[in-house]
Amino acid sequence: MRLSMTRRQAVIAISGAAASTFLDPIVALAEPDPLPSWTAGPAKQAILDFVRVTTDPSSPRYVAPKDRLATFDQDGTTWVEHPLYTELVFALDRVVELAPQHPAWKTTEPFKFVLAGDKAAMAKFTMKDLEAIVAVTHSGMPVGAFQAAAREWIAKAKNPRWDRPYTDLLYQPMLEVMRYLRANGYQTYIVTGGGQDFVRAYADRVYGVPTEEVIGSAEDTQFEYSENGKATLIKAPKLLLNNNMSGKPEDIYLFTGLQPQAAFGNSTGDRQMLEYTGSGGGARLMMLVLHDDSIREYAYGPAQGLPDTKIGTFTQALYDEARSKDWIVISMKNDWKRIFTFER
Amino acid sequence: MRLSMTRRQAVIAISGAAASTFLDPIVALAEPDPLPSWTAGPAKQAILDFVRVTTDPSSPRYVAPKDRLATFDQDGTTWVEHPLYTELVFALDRVVELAPQHPAWKTTEPFKFVLAGDKAAMAKFTMKDLEAIVAVTHSGMPVGAFQAAAREWIAKAKNPRWDRPYTDLLYQPMLEVMRYLRANGYQTYIVTGGGQDFVRAYADRVYGVPTEEVIGSAEDTQFEYSENGKATLIKAPKLLLNNNMSGKPEDIYLFTGLQPQAAFGNSTGDRQMLEYTGSGGGARLMMLVLHDDSIREYAYGPAQGLPDTKIGTFTQALYDEARSKDWIVISMKNDWKRIFTFER
Repeated sequence: MRLSMTRRQAVIAISGAAASTFLDPIVALAEPDPLPSWTAGPAKQAILDFVRVTTDPSSPRYVAPKDRLATFDQDGTTWVEHPLYTELVFALDRVVELAPQHPAWKTTEPFKFVLAGDKAAMAKFTMKDLEAIVAVTHSGMPVGAFQAAAREWIAKAKNPRWDRPYTDLLYQPMLEVMRYLRANGYQTYIVTGGGQDFVRAYADRVYGVPTEEVIGSAEDTQFEYSENGKATLIKAPKLLLNNNMSGKPEDIYLFTGLQPQAAFGNSTGDRQMLEYTGSGGGARLMMLVLHDDSIREYAYGPAQGLPDTKIGTFTQALYDEARSKDWIVISMKNDWKRIFTFER
Repeated sequence: MRLSMTRRQAVIAISGAAASTFLDPIVALAEPDPLPSWTAGPAKQAILDFVRVTTDPSSPRYVAPKDRLATFDQDGTTWVEHPLYTELVFALDRVVELAPQHPAWKTTEPFKFVLAGDKAAMAKFTMKDLEAIVAVTHSGMPVGAFQAAAREWIAKAKNPRWDRPYTDLLYQPMLEVMRYLRANGYQTYIVTGGGQDFVRAYADRVYGVPTEEVIGSAEDTQFEYSENGKATLIKAPKLLLNNNMSGKPEDIYLFTGLQPQAAFGNSTGDRQMLEYTGSGGGARLMMLVLHDDSIREYAYGPAQGLPDTKIGTFTQALYDEARSKDWIVISMKNDWKRIFTFER
């Protein structure tokens, strides 16, 4: 009793070359390489092989269109996360913006350091300080008001090192992978430890990923009636989903009911997502981005003797697990010809 | 920086008549009526008008494809819920099946009544009894094992009144609405108070709704390693999402980031979903199924003097709210020419 095709099935059904032409102008250009920013090598080849064996109906590892799911961590995997997660920059800016409504912040830690622009004190912020800042700047307002604030900020804020909007700091090679997978019938979900509502403010525009394909850490919402009796959802200061570590596979299952065929990450927060992906049968693709390019981006680990930093930790244990399980470690320095879309 | 079309945009982009032909064989038949099981009248007209004004680009109430979301309650809205929710029948059958692993159940309430087939005692089960039965039958196993059990049960279990599989007891008029909305670029989500994992076992096959477009009440899952070190998700006996009443709009927002343009329900459990849908601007469609056909299906309310029953309560207060807010109340008796697909 198949009633009608889902969108996913519709896309798949537009068969072969026609589908590529229709769905993805890049693929249809004279240059047939779907991953032009990738250096020829094992990482690039693994992606091409994975798509081939999972989409060729004659392949023993063919995957039915309805099961084609690829999940992408965001910070450090699809865009820059150093020296500070973009969403934390947003939260700090929002403290300044909301300060007039909270006079007590002037004399309360950690807010007073933010308002004073005390960079030395801010550099010493603990996770608890940062969580307090995220909580107050991400709750207490209708969901629509938060969405508007996030959209407004991301449209105008600039990353100081590159003097460009943060959304210019997406990794072009990963955008090519997402596009390539979508052109081959995969859903490409963002699965981020960052705030779901924040990422949804720009995911459609910059990644081509609609809001319903973004899974992130999420505050609870509270259904309420406004003064005029209108139904409203208010963001509550209570974390409902902590979408990091084990939370990633748990939330992927909660949202989709599926086990990904491919997963991309860059830190210990992505370990369980890759393990869960790899525990399925057939062809699976697990990839980790190693930040080893101090010139074009940043270098941090501490795997492989790279500097140890607080943000985006890639331990040697994770590196060893990747090697032992045939996960692919992507060297930004060697595997990526180009890092950002704006280069050249 | 639009990278590539999403599936949703792709479907919309296959323009006009070609899209209908491609997406939905029914629409392309000689009979142009997309809702043949509906009697001509205000309910049918409201659906046709809603689709027209929200998809005609020249309409002032045009809705962008990415925002086209319609949400459907399941029990009592898209299939039969009397005399007992289908999932509860499944849970009771599962008590019998799992009993050998739980010898204590033979002497423990409420399980012993189920094992003894004591219908008089079972008819007196409280919500707490039923919750205990759902908890033990829906947790403690890997998610894949539960999915398999649900798929197996739904494939062979039969509804005693009609002597047919439960999935034959879908309302044909509502299937036509879902199909018609999808053919016009709407996502049609199931938003049920029932268990998300249970409904996902058959939603794709019977509704044409993929697992990721089913939102339901959900147990938490626990990421674990099996004895051979394989990553596994275990269903935990803890309710994470209670997708009923206020939980419906909260979870729709959590899963999609969107406010529905249309919502369909049949009971007080759907009230907040319809209120939230109606609080948006532009064209919105809110509909409630009234079970007033004791011959072809069941009659219950207690709205409009219909019998008051425990399952699927449609109060007079909800009826009055519907009238005052221009929600459409669907009379099964008068608005539906045909109730089930198998009729005639």
